Amino acid sequence: DKAETKGGLVVKTDDGRFEMKIGGRIQFDGYLATDDDDLGSPGLISTTGFRRARLTMEGKAYGWSYKFENDFTGAAAGGGFREMWIGTKVFDQNLRIGQAKPYRGMEELTSSNEIDFMERPFATASGVFTGNQFAQGLFLDGGGANWTYGISAYSLRNEDAAATEGVGGAARVTFAPILSDETVLHLGLSASSDHPSDNGTGAVTRTASGRQFGRIAGATAIATTPEERTAFGLELAGKAGPIYGQAEYVMADYKNEATEDEDVDTWYVQASYMLTGESKPYDAKKAVFKSPKPNGAMGAWELKARYDVMEGSEGTGPAAEEISYWIVGANWFVNPNVRFMFEYLQGNVSPFAGADVEASVFQVRTQFGF
Amino acid sequence: DKAETKGGLVVKTDDGRFEMKIGGRIQFDGYLATDDDDLGSPGLISTTGFRRARLTMEGKAYGWSYKFENDFTGAAAGGGFREMWIGTKVFDQNLRIGQAKPYRGMEELTSSNEIDFMERPFATASGVFTGNQFAQGLFLDGGGANWTYGISAYSLRNEDAAATEGVGGAARVTFAPILSDETVLHLGLSASSDHPSDNGTGAVTRTASGRQFGRIAGATAIATTPEERTAFGLELAGKAGPIYGQAEYVMADYKNEATEDEDVDTWYVQASYMLTGESKPYDAKKAVFKSPKPNGAMGAWELKARYDVMEGSEGTGPAAEEISYWIVGANWFVNPNVRFMFEYLQGNVSPFAGADVEASVFQVRTQFGF
Amino acid sequence: DKAETKGGLVVKTDDGRFEMKIGGRIQFDGYLATDDDDLGSPGLISTTGFRRARLTMEGKAYGWSYKFENDFTGAAAGGGFREMWIGTKVFDQNLRIGQAKPYRGMEELTSSNEIDFMERPFATASGVFTGNQFAQGLFLDGGGANWTYGISAYSLRNEDAAATEGVGGAARVTFAPILSDETVLHLGLSASSDHPSDNGTGAVTRTASGRQFGRIAGATAIATTPEERTAFGLELAGKAGPIYGQAEYVMADYKNEATEDEDVDTWYVQASYMLTGESKPYDAKKAVFKSPKPNGAMGAWELKARYDVMEGSEGTGPAAEEISYWIVGANWFVNPNVRFMFEYLQGNVSPFAGADVEASVFQVRTQFGF
Repeated sequence: DKAETKGGLVVKTDDGRFEMKIGGRIQFDGYLATDDDDLGSPGLISTTGFRRARLTMEGKAYGWSYKFENDFTGAAAGGGFREMWIGTKVFDQNLRIGQAKPYRGMEELTSSNEIDFMERPFATASGVFTGNQFAQGLFLDGGGANWTYGISAYSLRNEDAAATEGVGGAARVTFAPILSDETVLHLGLSASSDHPSDNGTGAVTRTASGRQFGRIAGATAIATTPEERTAFGLELAGKAGPIYGQAEYVMADYKNEATEDEDVDTWYVQASYMLTGESKPYDAKKAVFKSPKPNGAMGAWELKARYDVMEGSEGTGPAAEEISYWIVGANWFVNPNVRFMFEYLQGNVSPFAGADVEASVFQVRTQFGF
Repeated sequence: DKAETKGGLVVKTDDGRFEMKIGGRIQFDGYLATDDDDLGSPGLISTTGFRRARLTMEGKAYGWSYKFENDFTGAAAGGGFREMWIGTKVFDQNLRIGQAKPYRGMEELTSSNEIDFMERPFATASGVFTGNQFAQGLFLDGGGANWTYGISAYSLRNEDAAATEGVGGAARVTFAPILSDETVLHLGLSASSDHPSDNGTGAVTRTASGRQFGRIAGATAIATTPEERTAFGLELAGKAGPIYGQAEYVMADYKNEATEDEDVDTWYVQASYMLTGESKPYDAKKAVFKSPKPNGAMGAWELKARYDVMEGSEGTGPAAEEISYWIVGANWFVNPNVRFMFEYLQGNVSPFAGADVEASVFQVRTQFGF
Repeated sequence: DKAETKGGLVVKTDDGRFEMKIGGRIQFDGYLATDDDDLGSPGLISTTGFRRARLTMEGKAYGWSYKFENDFTGAAAGGGFREMWIGTKVFDQNLRIGQAKPYRGMEELTSSNEIDFMERPFATASGVFTGNQFAQGLFLDGGGANWTYGISAYSLRNEDAAATEGVGGAARVTFAPILSDETVLHLGLSASSDHPSDNGTGAVTRTASGRQFGRIAGATAIATTPEERTAFGLELAGKAGPIYGQAEYVMADYKNEATEDEDVDTWYVQASYMLTGESKPYDAKKAVFKSPKPNGAMGAWELKARYDVMEGSEGTGPAAEEISYWIVGANWFVNPNVRFMFEYLQGNVSPFAGADVEASVFQVRTQFGF
């Protein structure tokens, strides 16, 4: 059998029927608060921290496969589980049993090693789907040359939380009418419905999370804990050579039997330009964009910007009616394993009553994927 | 040196003197409560969860060996440690120093990858030995072609619990008067004595545990925390071609200086029939049964049943005088790595005073060992 | 690519540009209290426990490298992180970004696999630098044939503790005027300055820690939580054939604005003699001593002794004015992977007011490094 390394490890049989990979990722962040006057003490904290430190084992045997991924920054008792599943092919479709990401929007399904910004936008578990990035159940996907589908039915169980009878389902379809190495146009559609347990476990809350920005907007979650969340998402993305753009819109309805229902809308648009001429690859099987591999010895340089906003319809006092931020920044892809991300983020929180809160932060990520 | 994979990884030198293995196991369960009317809220929870998610590293160097096994479903600070030891040969016997299983009954010593049912019976740490499946100290074993012995002396320390001066000892002998590939008759005998610390650490409690059934019988532990536990166990097991049967009886005495001593008796009998004709292998070195490897492309199918009961002699009110359950089910061994287990469990708890409690659950396990 | 094992695993490309190593360490301790009459209940606890159980992954790719080390005895949420960094060469110097040890004294920078005694002395994070063994930031080192330097600037963040704005810096230089295989004379100098955050996070306390001895002196930390710690350290070490000696002196000033500043002085001296004739190797790149590799089939045997003392200048009542202990013991290096350490420790705590406290313990470590 053959052993290979590019920083991680792959051992496979010559016929490819058996395989084991060991890899991981280290993401180390530094934060410098540039304006936190509007926030009470302690405000934003200029500090460092590991955003992710994961061990990932993957293998194949007799037509079945597994993925065993633990993030050591996670809480104990399974709180570090990320993808943790057993899979096989059924009628040439991919079936996975265990813990994985429900098929929601494009950015949610992009690996944290490949996302273009340090944090995902509000159209993901960093916003409207807080706490539900991973779920446990059945995950089926497939597709053709320029289209994909994914369907998932799951428990809202978090491995380190109490067992819950909360359940949900999510599905996504995508289509790429233009699909070449240099030019891509991507369209996507997703829908999900999540039902927490009557006893309150498996909650479907939504807040503005994502490390430093979570601190800007932390205490201002848009709505109360609902009995049901229904969400629809639209995706529009594409690239033309070194230019890339991506946008999503999610319309979520949180049903509160005791009070008014709440509609939460969120959308973002992000774009980048590769100074060194690379073109962002499109993964047609997962229907997401990936990171460019550098052309030259000095690595690849990318300029980028994002605007992201989440709006609620019901609420009072300091709860946020609108949370938004914009980011400008740059990425340096040193080699296929190492990257640096530099970002300046300016955020704004508008409560239903009271004055707006503004804050800004400069942040840097150092990352090694293996 | 040679690298091999069957889903996990083995690297060894040609002379076999040095070796490293990396493996693991994923066990993902689903539970569906079919009757929990007798139980108060929340009753049985129909949910999912990872029963085990382990990384196992094993190695050999210069005549010494180690096993480093962590279950990521475990609590932090060492609470995920399973087997974690340093070993060598002494006069051709196996000596291990560190954390391992005391030599108690047959089912306790069967790997969780090889057990025939989703949970072990009450004759193990799922019942009379709750909290003491693993202990820290010295473990010595050996034997001949058809007999084995094991002796262990240990601290009752759990790595994630407070340090304790509680200590214990356990020993087991087995004999297989009939031992061929097709037919096995196994007899076993074990004894153990455990002494918690005076300050209450290193407790030797016993409850009906094992996930969903633990919820059926959870609040009805048979006895109070004792000063000493002495237990004797008998094993009778065997197979004839596709038929397999196994039974154990454990008689435990819990010495309570303040109150009455309590006798707890438990026994179980389990049997199975391989529809596809395989015969369960017997591991003559460990004196336990293992899982069959499938003969055909459709995998191996096994029908199975168990009855298990635990009885206490002292107690009052809602504490259980008798806890019992039966299981009928089937196992599908898809290939040497992957299996599914399907079980219907019906349990009954008889308190010293008050009405019996009955409940039932349907449960499924998906498992990948690598 | 080539796969090799000596109990752990190394896979590398023939040109050495890509590499992955998987290793770990198991350190299992037993403690027997031989005198704890002066201590209140529970006093010293005669028990067992895993001192370290680490998985270590290291790799190289495209001129960059990483180290991913987690101790499974650590708390969750990153509390098990040890060295966790991304590195490269800058003008032929070593630069690391992430979590590593600040460049303080010699014993602190010696790997826990290579230290000559079971616990480090008070001149490390086991004493004056408690809680700050690892820090997050930038680490630069280099040197020549017989000298080294190291400079670090860091956040006082502990990954499992609250984010802090506390920061610090530490630097060390060493020189070995005599440096041959048989004879070494080592001189070292270090300085560090640590500033906790105003909000109290990132504290720079100092206590007598190190497992069992921590229990002897546990409640008698020398000073209160300060606003700043400045420390200077001196190192003198050497060997001549089988004889080895090492001493450090650290003078630390804890600035308390509310109260008096406190000076804490600590020094230790340790020495050993290899009965089997080996000579302790000196790692000239890290400027620390390592463990001998055994010459013969019976392994290497070492006799050893240490005296260690820490003194405070301010305090009242039961707070310790002086904490000291001595150790005599032996090490058995069975092979390059396995060792046993045997130690008898007698400790003394002298409070500012009240009677001295004496206690002693016998302790054993079993260790496998792979």
